[in-house]
Amino acid sequence: MSLIFRRGIASMASLKKASKVVCIGRNYADHVKELNNQRPKQPFFFLKPPSSILAPGEGPVIRPRGVDLHYEVELALIIGKQVKNLEASDEQGALDAIDSYALSIDMTARNAQNEAKKKGLPWDIAKGFDTFLPISEIIPKSAIPDPHNVEIYLSVNNVIQQSDSTELMLFQIPRMLSDISKVMTLEKGDIVITGTPKGVGPVVPGDVMRAGLKVNGKEIEAAKIEVA
Amino acid sequence: MSLIFRRGIASMASLKKASKVVCIGRNYADHVKELNNQRPKQPFFFLKPPSSILAPGEGPVIRPRGVDLHYEVELALIIGKQVKNLEASDEQGALDAIDSYALSIDMTARNAQNEAKKKGLPWDIAKGFDTFLPISEIIPKSAIPDPHNVEIYLSVNNVIQQSDSTELMLFQIPRMLSDISKVMTLEKGDIVITGTPKGVGPVVPGDVMRAGLKVNGKEIEAAKIEVA
Ligand SMILES: [Mg+2]
Ligand SMILES: [Mg+2]
Ligand SMILES: [Mg+2]
Repeated sequence: MSLIFRRGIASMASLKKASKVVCIGRNYADHVKELNNQRPKQPFFFLKPPSSILAPGEGPVIRPRGVDLHYEVELALIIGKQVKNLEASDEQGALDAIDSYALSIDMTARNAQNEAKKKGLPWDIAKGFDTFLPISEIIPKSAIPDPHNVEIYLSVNNVIQQSDSTELMLFQIPRMLSDISKVMTLEKGDIVITGTPKGVGPVVPGDVMRAGLKVNGKEIEAAKIEVA
Repeated sequence: MSLIFRRGIASMASLKKASKVVCIGRNYADHVKELNNQRPKQPFFFLKPPSSILAPGEGPVIRPRGVDLHYEVELALIIGKQVKNLEASDEQGALDAIDSYALSIDMTARNAQNEAKKKGLPWDIAKGFDTFLPISEIIPKSAIPDPHNVEIYLSVNNVIQQSDSTELMLFQIPRMLSDISKVMTLEKGDIVITGTPKGVGPVVPGDVMRAGLKVNGKEIEAAKIEVA
């Protein structure tokens, strides 16, 4: 595996130096329903600050006072080169843009987000607190032959809450990278998180979240997240 | 002046490597009114991606098709060190956190932002296109003895559209940096843009925006922006 690792550009240190983290919203139909949201006609996205990244072993997610803290497990793409104006039909171009993968949890201050939505205000505070992006070790690209066919799951205190295949994505990776890169140039080292399946919910201090990713039923060790 | 420049850490190259750009919304009362917005009870903020930065001489602001493109001139703070949980009462701490200044134009796809507000969606697309953050040369800290007492202005085709003193800010810099740093740790090199005074409006291709900053009526050369 070490040879494969070395082939990618990404390291945990480089992740923390990402110039941006772009997050796709509402990309799984059953998750759209569970939050009573409208199904999007096109991908939409928002930013999390790199300061929200929580690397493995860096300690717990901090729940700000008064916050209803929700988990959202998501497949993360680590971008390997500059991408601008990618065409959605360019599937090879999209795959070529990916250096490697990671698993991530898009922690969300749900009450703050709901208030922002109601008032028409930005989401960036609700999504952007320090520690709000726990991330796994880097998953070498070769470990995921098809990013639209992996199972991602998350448990809270050993009870599975989310578990679905990325084949359920409403907009697949080429379309996402196309839409994003027609707005903002993606840079080498940028992170794109691809939306969460159904089953999001609250955690309170003391809860333990575990998340992982399976390819053909086989656990990928690098993808494991365990965070309080 | 060169000695003063060398004392700061910032350079145009370092600006483009900012880990984040944090933008204060609705920070001037008359601007809040002109957009029929609610006056905020506390500072709120959103992110622009570093990929939106347009350095001096890098060419025009690109207007995406169908976009109602608005300018918002804003004083930018360039952060000189890591800031976390700053207290709003710590005025000296806030000033010490500033490495230098710049002038900036927070370009906004106003129709996309209005639609996002109506639908409760994030602002990041409307605010985040490539070239949507024209920025001036770096202004040495010593050139601005009091950041709450400078005049910022913007003209379109030589007609002044915005011109107000930063003394009109609803929330001053210590309060902003406090509120931001209690959510997201500010890193050395991060950029904070501090809100726009009244007078925002549309530009179309071919229009020339000029912006500048005066201290005690005296133009600061480094602050000048000229962009089509
Ligand atoms: Mg936003
Ligand atoms: Mg999410
Ligand atoms: Mg603005």
